[in-house]
Amino acid sequence: MKTAVLGFGTVGAGIYEMLSQAKGLEQGPVLVRPGKDDAPFKKTSIEAVLSEPGVEAVAEAMGGIEPAFSYAMAAIKAGKHFVTSNKALVAAHGIELSAAAREMGVGFLFSAACGGGVPFLHNLSIAVESDDIVSLGGILNGTTNYMLDAMQRRALSYGEALKDAQKLGYAEADPSADVSGLDALRKIVLGSAVAYGILPTEGLYNEGIEHFTDEDVKRIQARGLTCRLVAKCAAVPGGKVYAYVEPVLLKASAAECSVLDNYNLARYEGKCSGPMVFIGQGAGRWPTASAVLRDLDCLLKGRLYMLASDCREGSADNEACRHSYYVRLPGSFTGCFEVKSYSESDGVAELITKPMSVKSMHELATRLRAEGADIFFAELEG
Amino acid sequence: MKTAVLGFGTVGAGIYEMLSQAKGLEQGPVLVRPGKDDAPFKKTSIEAVLSEPGVEAVAEAMGGIEPAFSYAMAAIKAGKHFVTSNKALVAAHGIELSAAAREMGVGFLFSAACGGGVPFLHNLSIAVESDDIVSLGGILNGTTNYMLDAMQRRALSYGEALKDAQKLGYAEADPSADVSGLDALRKIVLGSAVAYGILPTEGLYNEGIEHFTDEDVKRIQARGLTCRLVAKCAAVPGGKVYAYVEPVLLKASAAECSVLDNYNLARYEGKCSGPMVFIGQGAGRWPTASAVLRDLDCLLKGRLYMLASDCREGSADNEACRHSYYVRLPGSFTGCFEVKSYSESDGVAELITKPMSVKSMHELATRLRAEGADIFFAELEG
Repeated sequence: MKTAVLGFGTVGAGIYEMLSQAKGLEQGPVLVRPGKDDAPFKKTSIEAVLSEPGVEAVAEAMGGIEPAFSYAMAAIKAGKHFVTSNKALVAAHGIELSAAAREMGVGFLFSAACGGGVPFLHNLSIAVESDDIVSLGGILNGTTNYMLDAMQRRALSYGEALKDAQKLGYAEADPSADVSGLDALRKIVLGSAVAYGILPTEGLYNEGIEHFTDEDVKRIQARGLTCRLVAKCAAVPGGKVYAYVEPVLLKASAAECSVLDNYNLARYEGKCSGPMVFIGQGAGRWPTASAVLRDLDCLLKGRLYMLASDCREGSADNEACRHSYYVRLPGSFTGCFEVKSYSESDGVAELITKPMSVKSMHELATRLRAEGADIFFAELEG
Repeated sequence: MKTAVLGFGTVGAGIYEMLSQAKGLEQGPVLVRPGKDDAPFKKTSIEAVLSEPGVEAVAEAMGGIEPAFSYAMAAIKAGKHFVTSNKALVAAHGIELSAAAREMGVGFLFSAACGGGVPFLHNLSIAVESDDIVSLGGILNGTTNYMLDAMQRRALSYGEALKDAQKLGYAEADPSADVSGLDALRKIVLGSAVAYGILPTEGLYNEGIEHFTDEDVKRIQARGLTCRLVAKCAAVPGGKVYAYVEPVLLKASAAECSVLDNYNLARYEGKCSGPMVFIGQGAGRWPTASAVLRDLDCLLKGRLYMLASDCREGSADNEACRHSYYVRLPGSFTGCFEVKSYSESDGVAELITKPMSVKSMHELATRLRAEGADIFFAELEG
């Protein structure tokens, strides 16, 4: 199956190279920016790419929403299968693209968009055909995992860990989408769409790692716990889902604690299958290209969709998800919590809350921060 | 796709029930023993099952080699897709069954036969289409993992751990295939067949957990290590593979150490994808049935094979794989080892060997045991 590639950056070049080795697949033209067409296979217009004889599939690795969305629609309407690693594109237009692909009888797969090389969405999309998904989630951002791991295992400060991640190419010059948990949130909504047929666009919450300090590391290590940034999602009554990202404190035996450096972990629990955990590289040229090639192999073998035909946008209900939190904040701000346990030292309080909703905790933190409080909070698992 | 089920035990009944809920699949007849046909869908002969109108696929969950093999061949020759969770059947006749299925243009999948519910062979079989597999392996036997975990985390003796596993239904009355590592070995050879197109039948080695005592637990915990029973396989020069099972001592940060109770972990490393780890339930009604349903969904979508058409039997070369071992044995038997470090207390020696081949270590242990030595040995990772 001759496959065109849109974009010739880190991932696109990886896809192009892997196509030459893959069984049943063949290198097609590559879309590059004007002036970068220094080889015959490089084209500078989507029309030239799509009109090349024999192209049956298009793999997009440009990133961003436009022009990726216009090109995706053009490819699908020209009767080409479409595969992408672009989470922003799928979060914004996945339902529309899937519907257009179904109408044209071509495939639309995006397993590289959540978890990178980790075959999470692929397996989840098969599981939903015969099993009920109880919940899903995991460590879906490698940059923040690298930083958290460096802070806890190598005792780096937040700033040192960030600088290290940038030096290694794991973090952007502007790391805000990673450290705020927004990147992980964009990925978990794709999991929700695959698992529950609901792509939530409202009522979502993301707490990142910006408030986690080296003093916090010492405090949670004294409790024998490890911090990871985790996305979680499940169906709740009323045809909704909860979906959020927040730091979670885990016991050493949790699989999440074995996820070091910039690795990802994704998991789902099936009613029949039980818990399923996947660990691998969430980003990078070859892991991401591998995931795109996996999707292309699926197309070749006849598996065309990860989204059900009735998948729809919806809103998240994070009031429905309740658990205890660990909160570190100034002692003077602790009055608004119902606490299970409490300690204070030098004006800094650590408390364990009674179970409260995700929505309440995230909104309370926003309010107290607006009042000037420096707060770190994390879900307490188990 | 109407699917017949062979066998109505733990797994077969699970498959039958899941078929009623699965998209695109439909319950067909079930083969039971004579006298057990107490419902119209239960048939007592393979002919009656295969001649039922509309049956397109057969899922086998009887276990054992005969009559499973005859029935499999009958199903394939009658033009039915064939799916199985039966590792003994695939290890003995997988290549023959795959060839027959290709000849008939029907599918042959067996992802439930290695790792139970863990989607290891499924993902591996996709990865090989575009990536080179550097190595594969993991914790492929839940019974022994349950026992090792109970001994190390709950300080049970070997006998108590075994009794516990039997009480919970994890271990057979005769647990020898589990505790000797033979069960895990039968599974890793299937991984080899999928990854490398070589199903090794000779030159294999398996060391189990029978020689691991509660005193050994204390000794390795004093070193900060955890013991797991691990299968490993990789290609070696000369068109061969190494493939073996042995205890491995791991640092706490290894993903294997997060695998508790009777869970399984399977992993492969792709040249492009990097390390991929899968954790889940390796056995039990619903996890195993889920894996069979996953294979049926693949058939439905057009993915028909996990074995390449040129897959062949071969012999393993465990001389080609070398590493250091931890060995606990009587001080009087240590002369035949080249040691890196050594300690002895009350006549019991602990030593770390210089790198030596898997074949040498396993054969040396066999020889020294024949001379009366009580030996525990384990691979030292890293």
